[in-house]
Amino acid sequence: MLDSLFKPKSVAIIGASVKELSIGNRILKNLLEFGFKGAIYPINPQADKVQGVRAYKSILDAPDGIDLVHIIIPGKFVPQAVEDCGKKGVKSIIINSAGFRETGPEGEAIEKDFLSRAKKYGIRIFGPNCQGIINTDPDVRAYCNFTFTKPESGCISIAAQSGGVGELIHQGFSEMGIGTRIYASNGNACDISIPEIIKYFGKDPGTHVVVLYIESISNPKEFIEAARELADRKPVLAMKAGRTGEGAKAVSSHTGALAGKDITTDLIFEKAGVLVFKDEGELCRAAAAFALQPIPKSNRVGIITNTGGPAIIATDVLIDSGLEIPQLSEKAKEALKDQLYPEACVNNPIDVLATGKSEHFRAAIESLMNQDRIDSLFINFVTPFFVDTDSIAKEIANAGRQKKKPIICNLMTDKSHWTETIRILKDGGIPCYSFPSDAAKALASLVHYARLEPAEHDKISLFPNTDKKSVELIINKARESGKSFLSANDVYSILEAYEITTVPWEIADSPDKAVYAAEEIGFPVVVKADSESIIHKSDFGFVALNLKDADEVKACAEDMRKRLASDDLNFLVQKYLPGGSEVIVGAKAEKGIGHIIMFGIGGIYVEVLKDLVFKIAPISHKKAREMINGIKGAKTLKGLRGKESVYEDGIIEIICKISQLVTDFPAIKEIDLNPLIAFSNRVFVADARITI
Amino acid sequence: MLDSLFKPKSVAIIGASVKELSIGNRILKNLLEFGFKGAIYPINPQADKVQGVRAYKSILDAPDGIDLVHIIIPGKFVPQAVEDCGKKGVKSIIINSAGFRETGPEGEAIEKDFLSRAKKYGIRIFGPNCQGIINTDPDVRAYCNFTFTKPESGCISIAAQSGGVGELIHQGFSEMGIGTRIYASNGNACDISIPEIIKYFGKDPGTHVVVLYIESISNPKEFIEAARELADRKPVLAMKAGRTGEGAKAVSSHTGALAGKDITTDLIFEKAGVLVFKDEGELCRAAAAFALQPIPKSNRVGIITNTGGPAIIATDVLIDSGLEIPQLSEKAKEALKDQLYPEACVNNPIDVLATGKSEHFRAAIESLMNQDRIDSLFINFVTPFFVDTDSIAKEIANAGRQKKKPIICNLMTDKSHWTETIRILKDGGIPCYSFPSDAAKALASLVHYARLEPAEHDKISLFPNTDKKSVELIINKARESGKSFLSANDVYSILEAYEITTVPWEIADSPDKAVYAAEEIGFPVVVKADSESIIHKSDFGFVALNLKDADEVKACAEDMRKRLASDDLNFLVQKYLPGGSEVIVGAKAEKGIGHIIMFGIGGIYVEVLKDLVFKIAPISHKKAREMINGIKGAKTLKGLRGKESVYEDGIIEIICKISQLVTDFPAIKEIDLNPLIAFSNRVFVADARITI
Repeated sequence: MLDSLFKPKSVAIIGASVKELSIGNRILKNLLEFGFKGAIYPINPQADKVQGVRAYKSILDAPDGIDLVHIIIPGKFVPQAVEDCGKKGVKSIIINSAGFRETGPEGEAIEKDFLSRAKKYGIRIFGPNCQGIINTDPDVRAYCNFTFTKPESGCISIAAQSGGVGELIHQGFSEMGIGTRIYASNGNACDISIPEIIKYFGKDPGTHVVVLYIESISNPKEFIEAARELADRKPVLAMKAGRTGEGAKAVSSHTGALAGKDITTDLIFEKAGVLVFKDEGELCRAAAAFALQPIPKSNRVGIITNTGGPAIIATDVLIDSGLEIPQLSEKAKEALKDQLYPEACVNNPIDVLATGKSEHFRAAIESLMNQDRIDSLFINFVTPFFVDTDSIAKEIANAGRQKKKPIICNLMTDKSHWTETIRILKDGGIPCYSFPSDAAKALASLVHYARLEPAEHDKISLFPNTDKKSVELIINKARESGKSFLSANDVYSILEAYEITTVPWEIADSPDKAVYAAEEIGFPVVVKADSESIIHKSDFGFVALNLKDADEVKACAEDMRKRLASDDLNFLVQKYLPGGSEVIVGAKAEKGIGHIIMFGIGGIYVEVLKDLVFKIAPISHKKAREMINGIKGAKTLKGLRGKESVYEDGIIEIICKISQLVTDFPAIKEIDLNPLIAFSNRVFVADARITI
Repeated sequence: MLDSLFKPKSVAIIGASVKELSIGNRILKNLLEFGFKGAIYPINPQADKVQGVRAYKSILDAPDGIDLVHIIIPGKFVPQAVEDCGKKGVKSIIINSAGFRETGPEGEAIEKDFLSRAKKYGIRIFGPNCQGIINTDPDVRAYCNFTFTKPESGCISIAAQSGGVGELIHQGFSEMGIGTRIYASNGNACDISIPEIIKYFGKDPGTHVVVLYIESISNPKEFIEAARELADRKPVLAMKAGRTGEGAKAVSSHTGALAGKDITTDLIFEKAGVLVFKDEGELCRAAAAFALQPIPKSNRVGIITNTGGPAIIATDVLIDSGLEIPQLSEKAKEALKDQLYPEACVNNPIDVLATGKSEHFRAAIESLMNQDRIDSLFINFVTPFFVDTDSIAKEIANAGRQKKKPIICNLMTDKSHWTETIRILKDGGIPCYSFPSDAAKALASLVHYARLEPAEHDKISLFPNTDKKSVELIINKARESGKSFLSANDVYSILEAYEITTVPWEIADSPDKAVYAAEEIGFPVVVKADSESIIHKSDFGFVALNLKDADEVKACAEDMRKRLASDDLNFLVQKYLPGGSEVIVGAKAEKGIGHIIMFGIGGIYVEVLKDLVFKIAPISHKKAREMINGIKGAKTLKGLRGKESVYEDGIIEIICKISQLVTDFPAIKEIDLNPLIAFSNRVFVADARITI
């Protein structure tokens, strides 16, 4: 447990300084000013007191039972300090000092040194090269951090790989007046990791929302597991920097970590069930909504406004974000008409007019609260000088306190004058924004979160009749003989073992046997040369389509043999099946993640448009269907220009079987079913490749 | 000239009220408090004084030579008030009152009534149903508006169709501390229009940047002309609401105006050379950058930061926005290395470290300012407690004052404590933002503006050898006979008159003549039935491809004649040209705009992906090339899978010729060249349709 870190009963500061502009001075100051509830022991060999607090020459001189120690001394002295802490029985250490792994081999050696000492004593290390932690829990009030923005209490916890961005988010929450619960920025993360912090947030009752800032994920599986568990209970909002090539370069020059490609991170976030943001301002504003308001049941928004234009802007953004703005029931409209000004508009958006008073707002709010067809309220509230805006704010705040449906407010006001109106809304827990688009996006985030599915809704059902034994044999044999590309025979046998239907096929080792095979399969057939020396068969004329009789097969096979004088040459003879739609299913091992499954439509969709969908295995039937529908060209599979729609369930089954196959056999590096030929009632694998 | 409106020397208020919460009271108060430089005449039949200012019973009693009158009385009294103003020689009137066109036919009649009286006297009307205007020019200080946020002086002028959004933007500028120059929200816009206001902004020397908020464009041609003229001299930033279907509905229920489809507005904005925004916050923040900083020469950004993460976020956003973050020259890196801390990073982003002092910032800024490969500076500035942030701010501000290259700053600070640092940056004209993404987007807007081309760079060269006479004859003849679909003969003759190459063709009125024609053209041929009664020929089997000899042509034509017993049946015989890529060029008349030209690639690109590009005619060669490159599937035209790339110049020529044709003949409603068949050295029209 990380209680000694996040809820320390005592904190010692090795490097507590009397110099005002030093970090060792600031941390003590922050602890004192924020009102830390535990004991504080400045460690300073020269001073008796630092900032009026009794100091100790060495950690060994301080009282026993210390939970947490800050170390803020030059890197080379850190191992000895950790050793001393060990002797003293310290539980956790925050190493604020820099000069370790991030500086090169010499620093890395020092990091290894202090880490092994810490392990010896069972001490947990936070950092090094980090800001530290903050816990605003009123029973703790630990500002163990050298930043400069006084924390405000709140229910959002932050874990950030960059102290700079962590502080940015923390400042954002302070400026918005929603505060922070726990803050953790763990720098080099040599011991305590983001997944561990995430787990801790999950158990902290004061944490209602979690915000993550990620630059690189060192152990994706561990991250997914921890984040998934947390996300099933609390909203997790995440942002990853280094999305672009240049950004990733900046990450690695900054942290030394190799940043993964963005697509992988997005898949990891998706698998973990976290809400992803690409804009940190949007993330902060969304977090405010999560902190203050309930999650809507669905996506139907009722808008109330007292000025037209901004409600239109909000409408655009909400619709663009996949929300709906349904009309009110006729009954509700009639009732509202009687309660609003005659010129008011009772469509959705409801315009109560700039002259609308508190009773008009109340009527509109109640109407929306009581209608089943509305899940959330968007209020656009301008504060004209000619109405009592405080009483309007009270109506909004009262409705907000009920926590029945979420209310988001775009507040158009002069902040220096309408202070009381603002205070009332704030006290009522109404998230207020300065631009309708910002408010609309925050509301949309609540809806998008409501749509994320908990892991339990995405159960993976396994196919029972797979012949794992055969596959194991094939793979082991191939491995022993040092092969990485499996032969056609092996590939098709593996697919058959998992009941993945292939186009009827046979392998023949001579032209005559190819004719034989063709006659057995039935004409017309396809003949493909199969040899380790050729990978892209069609590029070099080693695929012959639509061979109609024995003569054609023989001539073709002989020609191939002539052109490809290879010992291992075999002929793959398949039934020729014209028509149908070509799709592609693949799997690829990705370090630390397992396998990524790919789906796409053949031809220009893949080649020109890069129209592919990826997901991390294992994949449920539901997710497989989402993959198909996530393709831009999905329409072509659903019947176009009179063509019949393809057998989608067949494709889904193959995606799931491939997912199961690679999960069963992590040794598989890559599978390519390219193409699958999909007809209206059947799907066949027409060509496949497996590497191990 | 609208000087009497925007620079009034005197303002009378018909409806100046003693009631504190009334609009007639507020406008007077706003004028007084803002320090209007001219004379003020409250008109009030009962009071001798309003807010201490001498009032007049009637406008007729007030002194002569009044520039501007506010009318804030019930709608039905407005026509008489306008009449009185006319008698008095008033030049302009702002009608704040509502109750006119927006309320129905009765209100519309009143609007017509006062408008005709105004015209009689040569009075210009602003509104009705509007907020009014603000001019912060120190010689004017006209706060002729009933809003409540005290205007700050600035150089950005705002024209908004919605008072609510106008006020939102105006508040945004006040909050950002950049202020407003002229503000105009013209409500129903019965007389003075947005284009007129735009023209006025163009001539106002105090206006450096213009922001437009548009809900619907009533006269696109006039708008394009006015905005284009302005945009060639000053940055114009625009936003249109009602982008989504629901948003457009909200617009029309709000203003009664029929909102155009979004695509058209985007094309109008593009043609006008204005910078388009979809987020009003982004627009406001960009406007601040335009107001304070010069336009960069190109897109290469140098980043300076004193904390890692936020610079990475900025990098991602800049790259995503099409900007570049080039490496510094080796020489510059070497020089910088000597001037920064040893641990500092001299790559771009340059990390001067959190401990970086003013001299480090100065060195980094000077380095970027002096390098030709850098066009703009992005500074990410966190204010740690342990450095002298004021002196750093001074370095940034000094660099900003030079206006050599734009500087944008993401300032991470506690605004309640670092007030002096903030003040220094503000006085230096450095646009500061609270989030790196926001700052990066603002900088990107400057670059995007730099890339918009002035109209003069987009000259349209006309094709001289067009035979307008023949086309005129054909169109007139078709018109006289009441046809709207032109016959194949007419269509192909028109295309030939504009030297648009068609596949060799002939018209035959019998199967025998079709054979004749085919022999002349040379086999293989295509035969199409041509009759007014069939539009989609291929859908009904009235197109036969690849007919190889006389017998096939005859059989086919006779079969068509049998199935289509139509008097006007002709046979269009064309050379059959297999291979080649199918593309589509079209033109469509759009009310108020002229013609929109369309380009797309045939097949699934159009059918499934709706992959089409539109631009407003007339179109230059340059724009035509942009259209082709703007298509997602453009790659397929540039040589794919060993196929030769198509003759792009030929397609461009056809686009331009179609543009010229529809510009010459506005009577043409629609042209469809579908498909054009493009080969590596030639492009032919294979099928075409024209409606008039």
